[in-house]
Amino acid sequence: MSTFGQVYRVTTFGESHCKSVGCIVDGCPPGLQLTEKDIQIQLDRRRPGQSALTTPRSETDTVTIQSGTEFGYTLGTPICLIVPNKDQKPKDYTETDFYPRPSHADWTYLKKYGVKASSGGGRSSARETIGRVASGAIAEKYLSLVHGVEIVGFVSSVGTAKLKCLNTFLGEDKGAEFFHLMETVKRDVVDATPTRCPVPETAQEITEEILRRKEENNSIGGTVTCVIRNCPIGLGEPCFDKLEAKLAHAMLSIPATKGFEIGSGFEGAKMSGKDHNDAFISDGKGGLKTVKNHSGGIQGGISNGEHIYFTVAFKPAATISLSQETSAYDGEPGTLEARGRHDPCVLPRAVPIVESMAALVLMDALMIQNSRTATSSRLPQIPSEFKSIKPV
Amino acid sequence: MSTFGQVYRVTTFGESHCKSVGCIVDGCPPGLQLTEKDIQIQLDRRRPGQSALTTPRSETDTVTIQSGTEFGYTLGTPICLIVPNKDQKPKDYTETDFYPRPSHADWTYLKKYGVKASSGGGRSSARETIGRVASGAIAEKYLSLVHGVEIVGFVSSVGTAKLKCLNTFLGEDKGAEFFHLMETVKRDVVDATPTRCPVPETAQEITEEILRRKEENNSIGGTVTCVIRNCPIGLGEPCFDKLEAKLAHAMLSIPATKGFEIGSGFEGAKMSGKDHNDAFISDGKGGLKTVKNHSGGIQGGISNGEHIYFTVAFKPAATISLSQETSAYDGEPGTLEARGRHDPCVLPRAVPIVESMAALVLMDALMIQNSRTATSSRLPQIPSEFKSIKPV
Amino acid sequence: MSTFGQVYRVTTFGESHCKSVGCIVDGCPPGLQLTEKDIQIQLDRRRPGQSALTTPRSETDTVTIQSGTEFGYTLGTPICLIVPNKDQKPKDYTETDFYPRPSHADWTYLKKYGVKASSGGGRSSARETIGRVASGAIAEKYLSLVHGVEIVGFVSSVGTAKLKCLNTFLGEDKGAEFFHLMETVKRDVVDATPTRCPVPETAQEITEEILRRKEENNSIGGTVTCVIRNCPIGLGEPCFDKLEAKLAHAMLSIPATKGFEIGSGFEGAKMSGKDHNDAFISDGKGGLKTVKNHSGGIQGGISNGEHIYFTVAFKPAATISLSQETSAYDGEPGTLEARGRHDPCVLPRAVPIVESMAALVLMDALMIQNSRTATSSRLPQIPSEFKSIKPV
Amino acid sequence: MSTFGQVYRVTTFGESHCKSVGCIVDGCPPGLQLTEKDIQIQLDRRRPGQSALTTPRSETDTVTIQSGTEFGYTLGTPICLIVPNKDQKPKDYTETDFYPRPSHADWTYLKKYGVKASSGGGRSSARETIGRVASGAIAEKYLSLVHGVEIVGFVSSVGTAKLKCLNTFLGEDKGAEFFHLMETVKRDVVDATPTRCPVPETAQEITEEILRRKEENNSIGGTVTCVIRNCPIGLGEPCFDKLEAKLAHAMLSIPATKGFEIGSGFEGAKMSGKDHNDAFISDGKGGLKTVKNHSGGIQGGISNGEHIYFTVAFKPAATISLSQETSAYDGEPGTLEARGRHDPCVLPRAVPIVESMAALVLMDALMIQNSRTATSSRLPQIPSEFKSIKPV
Repeated sequence: MSTFGQVYRVTTFGESHCKSVGCIVDGCPPGLQLTEKDIQIQLDRRRPGQSALTTPRSETDTVTIQSGTEFGYTLGTPICLIVPNKDQKPKDYTETDFYPRPSHADWTYLKKYGVKASSGGGRSSARETIGRVASGAIAEKYLSLVHGVEIVGFVSSVGTAKLKCLNTFLGEDKGAEFFHLMETVKRDVVDATPTRCPVPETAQEITEEILRRKEENNSIGGTVTCVIRNCPIGLGEPCFDKLEAKLAHAMLSIPATKGFEIGSGFEGAKMSGKDHNDAFISDGKGGLKTVKNHSGGIQGGISNGEHIYFTVAFKPAATISLSQETSAYDGEPGTLEARGRHDPCVLPRAVPIVESMAALVLMDALMIQNSRTATSSRLPQIPSEFKSIKPV
Repeated sequence: MSTFGQVYRVTTFGESHCKSVGCIVDGCPPGLQLTEKDIQIQLDRRRPGQSALTTPRSETDTVTIQSGTEFGYTLGTPICLIVPNKDQKPKDYTETDFYPRPSHADWTYLKKYGVKASSGGGRSSARETIGRVASGAIAEKYLSLVHGVEIVGFVSSVGTAKLKCLNTFLGEDKGAEFFHLMETVKRDVVDATPTRCPVPETAQEITEEILRRKEENNSIGGTVTCVIRNCPIGLGEPCFDKLEAKLAHAMLSIPATKGFEIGSGFEGAKMSGKDHNDAFISDGKGGLKTVKNHSGGIQGGISNGEHIYFTVAFKPAATISLSQETSAYDGEPGTLEARGRHDPCVLPRAVPIVESMAALVLMDALMIQNSRTATSSRLPQIPSEFKSIKPV
Repeated sequence: MSTFGQVYRVTTFGESHCKSVGCIVDGCPPGLQLTEKDIQIQLDRRRPGQSALTTPRSETDTVTIQSGTEFGYTLGTPICLIVPNKDQKPKDYTETDFYPRPSHADWTYLKKYGVKASSGGGRSSARETIGRVASGAIAEKYLSLVHGVEIVGFVSSVGTAKLKCLNTFLGEDKGAEFFHLMETVKRDVVDATPTRCPVPETAQEITEEILRRKEENNSIGGTVTCVIRNCPIGLGEPCFDKLEAKLAHAMLSIPATKGFEIGSGFEGAKMSGKDHNDAFISDGKGGLKTVKNHSGGIQGGISNGEHIYFTVAFKPAATISLSQETSAYDGEPGTLEARGRHDPCVLPRAVPIVESMAALVLMDALMIQNSRTATSSRLPQIPSEFKSIKPV
Repeated sequence: MSTFGQVYRVTTFGESHCKSVGCIVDGCPPGLQLTEKDIQIQLDRRRPGQSALTTPRSETDTVTIQSGTEFGYTLGTPICLIVPNKDQKPKDYTETDFYPRPSHADWTYLKKYGVKASSGGGRSSARETIGRVASGAIAEKYLSLVHGVEIVGFVSSVGTAKLKCLNTFLGEDKGAEFFHLMETVKRDVVDATPTRCPVPETAQEITEEILRRKEENNSIGGTVTCVIRNCPIGLGEPCFDKLEAKLAHAMLSIPATKGFEIGSGFEGAKMSGKDHNDAFISDGKGGLKTVKNHSGGIQGGISNGEHIYFTVAFKPAATISLSQETSAYDGEPGTLEARGRHDPCVLPRAVPIVESMAALVLMDALMIQNSRTATSSRLPQIPSEFKSIKPV
């Protein structure tokens, strides 16, 4: 369905050629200072036409808050956010519409619903992500303001151009350079180049790769890595709603994603327990830290206070400016002619979407955990003899 | 929370030292022939002590159906499934309990709940997966009986011993050998060796790797790959509940998982659109097929009838028979002494868990889609002039 | 939360002084012919200013479909419906704002959220019901088109002016007149007078009662009775989501409601089993009918095909044009002066809200049952020897 | 479905002739002292055979905690509660099974599911309520321990024998006697007679009414009234999940219920706004109280700290020891012969069920509100100039 979250709940709507796209955020805590500006920042990072690397279509996606705030503060009631579509007319049938576009959702939508949006993929349109980014920006504002949470996504690879330090846990430096990046990377450094890759050398390679594919009228895939710093301890619901499970769900719900790994990820699957296991040390503040953070900030499905880091794989954009041999809806083989402009690489624009989905996951998990903690904290203390279940 | 699914809903309970573990399955279609035998098969594939490669602890996890069936048929009412625990007493405090076990959930559970199960990780116990496997077996029975769905998981790597044909989309044969395996692999071949790897050469390497780690008192990670054949077309809810998003959620909710990739996965992120895009051809039955299936059977979040295949990364088991330098709950450094027997490699036992979670995802998606199709099919036909939204 | 329904899901937003009010309908079946006109009809029956009996404030609440349809057909994607507010500015603080209005939600909202909308009750505003009526109109269109469902609500009492035949099961005619009304009442007869009471004699009494209260600057409560004809058999989920439980939930979620009774209701609580029990007879079409329908069309939480009828109690509107002795937020006693115009009796306008909420309950229950039936119908037949569980 | 609640979630299972009935409680706060004894108390008040007024079938429904506690404390993990059935065999087909029992769920279950439990009504069995009472007892323990909440239900009428002070808001004493009862009634007084009516005079009338119906081999309906004292302020979610809406949902989900009214209820529908409106006065502790509590402790869907009181109507038990003219499943008219013993009046046993369902509603609402309050309280204070939205 189109709703995400259990307590901080987002419901999105809209496709390419309808009047508007947007969302309702239900369950936002009351008393949060909030204006359109807080949301527009991330929408601007998502919009097309930001640089020569992305689609030349320029859209100024301007959000309005329809409800849920007064005098710049949230009321605790549902917040409806709307961004009008530029092109509000459903498209009439043209010759190219005989063909479901390869690797698009045209055919599966038609099979699922019996109808499809005239634009083809309907809700699989990139415009659907506007509601995600807008609602994530609100979650992020709270998390940052109250807990100092920092969520920083960046492009870690495009094609074979790849951040050298990525997933080097098994290498000589045991990931030291990677963990340094996780510790220090900031959004302004990420935004310093249109690639949204914070390491200049790799950014240069990525730029070249993208321009080469653009030249070819082709497209190229890549990965976004994201780090979450200062995540409160204790988030994530054991069993089905482990924090990493919700993050995986969130990330794989972004269009064009094909993979997700957290902590040591697929590299971790090659390691031995002795190498992978993460000893505890005192954090000097009465709590514990882990030494290596191979877990990626989550153990047993629950955040442990270390940096949460994960990587998301995106396939190349399916829209390319090349003609393609394929079949029409009725099975007749034919040629789908190249259409106009397209986005050779969606990765830079995917960064705020990844960050926003992470914020939605965290905010919901936080509010569920706040419920438990607040409810539980009013109970009488457990006597100290029960140290099997309460050792400290 | 401990519930998974929207219409076919599973709620699990139980930890290591309580009376029993199990689940309630709510929403199971009525009239399905079902006895304990249908469920026990998969539980037996999950249980410890199946071979020299897994833990020597032998548990016979015998399931009983408490409710929801009569005369061997489901009533459509909640099915409660229970497996008694052997060791039903909470453990008294011992010296090793001073230490949260490294890379276990002991510490995060304590921080989350303020208490923890005496066994340490509580619900992060592998026994929690019994309810998943039991409920998944019911879903699988329906899917197989009615739609001929085949869900086959297998171990595709352990440590660096890896199936050679895995993710070879960019290689010379463009994945031909891999796709052949996806087409043909069966559960009996998988179960032919204790490794649950269906390719004898790799199975041999994996056996050696596991025995070597067992010798070292160490453990080792790996990957499970799973293919779903004959999945009905049209499953998966666009936007947040895309079929791959639900699969990712399901897989990352299994203990010890660190990554998930579907279709071309992380390899796909290196490809160009021209190479990745998947032309349509007639399936000869009035529908369409894709040529390459890089999408892994899902496009726009919706199943397209091709084989769904995905790989899940598991970290090495955290329990090892080696002493570990770490810290006590109070932050004091010390040595956690090695305990008894352990499972050097959980991968073979993880196979039925991966299959079961896949079955739960599919069954729920199917029932939601059945609701839409049944409801929609009673509407008057859309006139043929609306070919923009209904081209065939 | 602000979402209602499990498969046909409605999420509403908006309060008095924000930009707009409305809702997102998620899960609407694709291929349903739908334009704004279908929705506007019920919104017009809900809007203020329809007659001398309701509030003189005239609002033309004009709905637009923002998403989810193309060329006049639903796509199966979320439908966002929006109605702009006339007064879009939050109200500045005035003297009357010192006082929480008696029997309004001003004080509880403030206690719940720590803030409140400047208009006072925020979401407890009658404008919140616009989203309900709009989404209910879509559900009703489907139910009527496909199943011939007729949902007819009407005012059955205002103050002590009451339909004589209401709840006369214990009377001489054993409810015959009442059941005749249930069988025959139509929406055009209901709308024939501004009272929305279909029995002229009672309508006259109700008119007098309302005008008298208007004169007094007072208000008056009443009841709405609603009948659902042609409800498909089998709707409602046993246990917690019985059809009557969902109807009760829906009705008591309408502002100002204080009671709900279904079938024999509170009268039934006075009856003996022998008098209340409802024998079955053949319906002449291979099924069964009940003789008396004391159950109100629902048995064991499941619709049985008989007319569903229920009555909802509304307290008098809290806003009256009389000064009231009460206390300020800080506890200081004082006088809340009378404000301007108000609605002496909300009952006539409540009719479409009751109908819409009933439509939402039915549509969701139908789609859940359609899922079960469609999924179950593909199973092999149960052999005839199992007549304990399948007697026919 | 069989799950109730959003954060404190209960899922029940079981019918008459299966192995056991019970439930899983998910989301219970950790650290609550809990043993079977806490739960058994209410189960004992629910069980049959308590007195000459109820069914002579004597069942000792003994509950065991299967999971979720250790050393007598809750772990925060799912609590599975099980009560074995005495009669664990599905019933073979007998002649009486030709007939769906009048006013039972036999026929609707068969129509809904295509099968039915051999006992007839399946989940509509009174045994299904065991899971409700068991899970409600846990909720009640928390509410009582931490907030001093008192939930007291009692029988307020049986047939025409009725508590004289019930719903006397319009009477001479304006409900004073009724409100005194709400203030003072305790569970031990309720349990002093087998009628569970706390007013001796009415208890006597009720006893006579029940014995008369028993003599006749007939049954009789009635009402349960329930008061909740010390409910925390701020519970209930505006819009669809108003506290009264959830209570109505909960109560109408109990088998055999036909009506619900809260606060002034159906009497309130006869009143004028001037008479019904409830002025505020200082509560002497910095907050406000209402003078009349016609709202029944809830305003705008949110608890206001006053006593919550409501009444639930139960139809007479459908099982009577009289032969009934009705039809077989195939439509053939015939006589359903009287069977054995039955419960002439379920009202006394319904009292703990009503209380438990109320506890489930409150606990869930509390945990949702605790989430909001805890999350919101960490935000910076709203400056005092915003008194339109934050007047104190």
